[in-house]
Amino acid sequence: MKTAITPTRAENFSEWYQNLITAADLAENAPVRGCMTIKPYGWAIWELMRDEMDKRIKAQGVQNAQFPLLIPINFFNKEAEHVAGFAKEAAVVTHYRLKAIDGVLQPDPDSKLTEPYIIRPTSETIIGDAMSRWVQSYRDLPLKLNQWVNVMRWEMRPRLFLRTSEFYWQEGHNAFATHEEANADARRMHKMYGDYMREVLAIPSIMGEKTPEERFAGADHTYTLEHIMQDGKALQAGTSHDLGQHFSKSFGIQYLGTDGQLKHAWTTSWGVSTRMMGSLFMTHSDDDGLVLPPAVAPYQVVIIPITRDENVEILNAYSEKLGEQLRAAGVRVLVDTSDMRAPDKMWKWIKRGVPLRVEIGAREMEENTVTITRRDLGKASKRTISDAELLRDVKDILNQMQHDMYDAVVERNKTMIHEIADLAALESALAEGKVGFFRIKNEQTQNSEFEGLMEKYKISRRCLDDNNPEYVYVAKSY
Amino acid sequence: MKTAITPTRAENFSEWYQNLITAADLAENAPVRGCMTIKPYGWAIWELMRDEMDKRIKAQGVQNAQFPLLIPINFFNKEAEHVAGFAKEAAVVTHYRLKAIDGVLQPDPDSKLTEPYIIRPTSETIIGDAMSRWVQSYRDLPLKLNQWVNVMRWEMRPRLFLRTSEFYWQEGHNAFATHEEANADARRMHKMYGDYMREVLAIPSIMGEKTPEERFAGADHTYTLEHIMQDGKALQAGTSHDLGQHFSKSFGIQYLGTDGQLKHAWTTSWGVSTRMMGSLFMTHSDDDGLVLPPAVAPYQVVIIPITRDENVEILNAYSEKLGEQLRAAGVRVLVDTSDMRAPDKMWKWIKRGVPLRVEIGAREMEENTVTITRRDLGKASKRTISDAELLRDVKDILNQMQHDMYDAVVERNKTMIHEIADLAALESALAEGKVGFFRIKNEQTQNSEFEGLMEKYKISRRCLDDNNPEYVYVAKSY
Repeated sequence: MKTAITPTRAENFSEWYQNLITAADLAENAPVRGCMTIKPYGWAIWELMRDEMDKRIKAQGVQNAQFPLLIPINFFNKEAEHVAGFAKEAAVVTHYRLKAIDGVLQPDPDSKLTEPYIIRPTSETIIGDAMSRWVQSYRDLPLKLNQWVNVMRWEMRPRLFLRTSEFYWQEGHNAFATHEEANADARRMHKMYGDYMREVLAIPSIMGEKTPEERFAGADHTYTLEHIMQDGKALQAGTSHDLGQHFSKSFGIQYLGTDGQLKHAWTTSWGVSTRMMGSLFMTHSDDDGLVLPPAVAPYQVVIIPITRDENVEILNAYSEKLGEQLRAAGVRVLVDTSDMRAPDKMWKWIKRGVPLRVEIGAREMEENTVTITRRDLGKASKRTISDAELLRDVKDILNQMQHDMYDAVVERNKTMIHEIADLAALESALAEGKVGFFRIKNEQTQNSEFEGLMEKYKISRRCLDDNNPEYVYVAKSY
Repeated sequence: MKTAITPTRAENFSEWYQNLITAADLAENAPVRGCMTIKPYGWAIWELMRDEMDKRIKAQGVQNAQFPLLIPINFFNKEAEHVAGFAKEAAVVTHYRLKAIDGVLQPDPDSKLTEPYIIRPTSETIIGDAMSRWVQSYRDLPLKLNQWVNVMRWEMRPRLFLRTSEFYWQEGHNAFATHEEANADARRMHKMYGDYMREVLAIPSIMGEKTPEERFAGADHTYTLEHIMQDGKALQAGTSHDLGQHFSKSFGIQYLGTDGQLKHAWTTSWGVSTRMMGSLFMTHSDDDGLVLPPAVAPYQVVIIPITRDENVEILNAYSEKLGEQLRAAGVRVLVDTSDMRAPDKMWKWIKRGVPLRVEIGAREMEENTVTITRRDLGKASKRTISDAELLRDVKDILNQMQHDMYDAVVERNKTMIHEIADLAALESALAEGKVGFFRIKNEQTQNSEFEGLMEKYKISRRCLDDNNPEYVYVAKSY
């Protein structure tokens, strides 16, 4: 069977992904090392994802603010683990002026900064510094801040959305009077992310704590959301950190308690990024292109008039009118009246993953019916219903699709999680090419033999099992 | 009379502005040269401004996208006027890794980039490069793109919101098949900005074309919006550029026309930034603090329970209930049940410019009345009305305020625009300390005598008079 994307997932998952991004017109490699340009269709998806996340963040009592892009090196240097974790991928600003020297434009030597800046890879330090001024008394706590920004971590082997030098994210930074509150906050935001992944992106998350080896640089506890891709690899889709007093001590975030004593606050940070889009695309898409959950589809419905020359304008007008009625019902609709051939239009919107395709031909127009097809189910779901039914049911159809997409991934994931008794079993599973998440007692992994397997099969500890932290999930990852 | 902000505007406008920003908790200087941190209350205002602008931009058929932060120097170098305009304020990234050398963290010499990058001061070049790939045929035109991003222009004398090294903006970049369409687009976006300033920010704009000396680096025509501040100085609040074929020729943005010929496109760019916030604050605020137009006020109404100890909880609950009813009517409401003293609460929200203050004391609660005060009119507008009237009229009251604020600025501006016959008259006006916009025949300014006045009084040509381009507006500016 011919597919819109070649190679197929089964043939070459990695190339399939690359071609999917192109076919759906989501993004391209920028002419800047490791960076991407997100094209309008890709960015429209991100705006929907972002706006819904922003609403949920604000519902937690968090306020948005904006902190500078640049961080003085000495700030960055204040927390030892943190600097060790990020120094090797930091973009450094050393000059503030260009000058043509011998006809070549270059950094003006006279503009050299006495102290260079780095472009933020994350903002714990610069926000820690602000918090040290903004937090004075117990009355100022909790302080809950978030920002939506670009960050930069120099990447040598970039992949669109999954790993790029510049990416876009929200980073939340909260401060509390006690460790209990801070830890509860890190867990609450972790749960908030899990709910979002399920309800909005239709993706189930493996949720748990990172082992010490995999923690964020400067955290006491890191809680992660791991998604299982169709090729069995893990994708870390978000993290929430209990930072203890690392940053409050480095930056002097202190408050006067009710008892009149000066104490260090306890902080958390939590973030999700455009990487989530990589998960969204790799989780749901098929060999014909993107499949978008209705909640984040820029167009939830595309109406395609199947025109014959003699009545193209009438049919277009009829389709536009139906589109308007659907919009009035709160649905995002595109009526494709462009002058492409009908099959080309269909494939265009199949590749872009529009949840519901509505076709109207001359006969349908006469009979006041439409032919609808769900993107996730394809031809099997194709049926003809009346305009009235479409208007009445469209939201239910989209809701059903949103839920079905989630359920389908849950089912698939069941085949991707393997109970493993010991390292011998793990090795033989890996050797025979088994893919997915391997659940094994963590104590089994505390030895050099496991280190060897990590090296050989490029696996890593993804997280502890939240239900039973004696167990750890192990997988290859993006 | 004691004022909440000292000094007053009349005493020292510049210090007043600085203290206003602090008193209203809008922003602070960041620990990064020339940069600011926008605090939650300031950012909440920006989000309202941004979301409304974004809606209007999309209504013009423009699509949002996202282009990289960094620009290769050679891109930047392709348009001669452009590079000359921005090279002197470009932040340069020269390394991609840090290393501790002799215990000091610094750029790793082994990570030096063969070609440095600059942090975008604006994105005509990187978007021009993308357009050269995205535009192939006349069918791809017009192409209308926008992005909301941070940009950087190194500032030696920064002022919060008015002039900072890093700032936030939208930059639109459109491409067309003909010069006519491009010029009409630049003018249409210019008008769109003018409507926005009037309807949303309640600010009248002096709108017109920049003289050649003041054009954007790389534009054929620059259309500007100039606002008159309370001290008579001009603030450039937005610009729209007809870029001719400067960038399409530098970057090879070419399309195959209907006639089968390959032609260069015509492009425009247009932007407004967080600088608009500076205008908003300096246009409307008074000696007691911020005055916000309801359209961009994070809280349009603040309810302050004037508590007596014995019934504080009942009164708070009563106030919360009223707040809920107002929210259900679509109004943004804060009910301030914090444990500050009532007068402190009042002054806090006066300083932050909340449009409508609603006070409820024990007697008001008994009588189901409230005492309301409009921020722009102060005590003179204080009156007691029934809860029912408040709920019925609140939107009208806010709308009226929005309009009255605009009208008040229009009236004030009339006293700030001066018809000037010749340079002698201009000099004597300036010498006697007259402030505002001076309207003079442009031909009068084409000589060294005017250059001398520009130097001496730090004035500049703001723009030509749109109604009669023989005349030019001259003013001091921010």
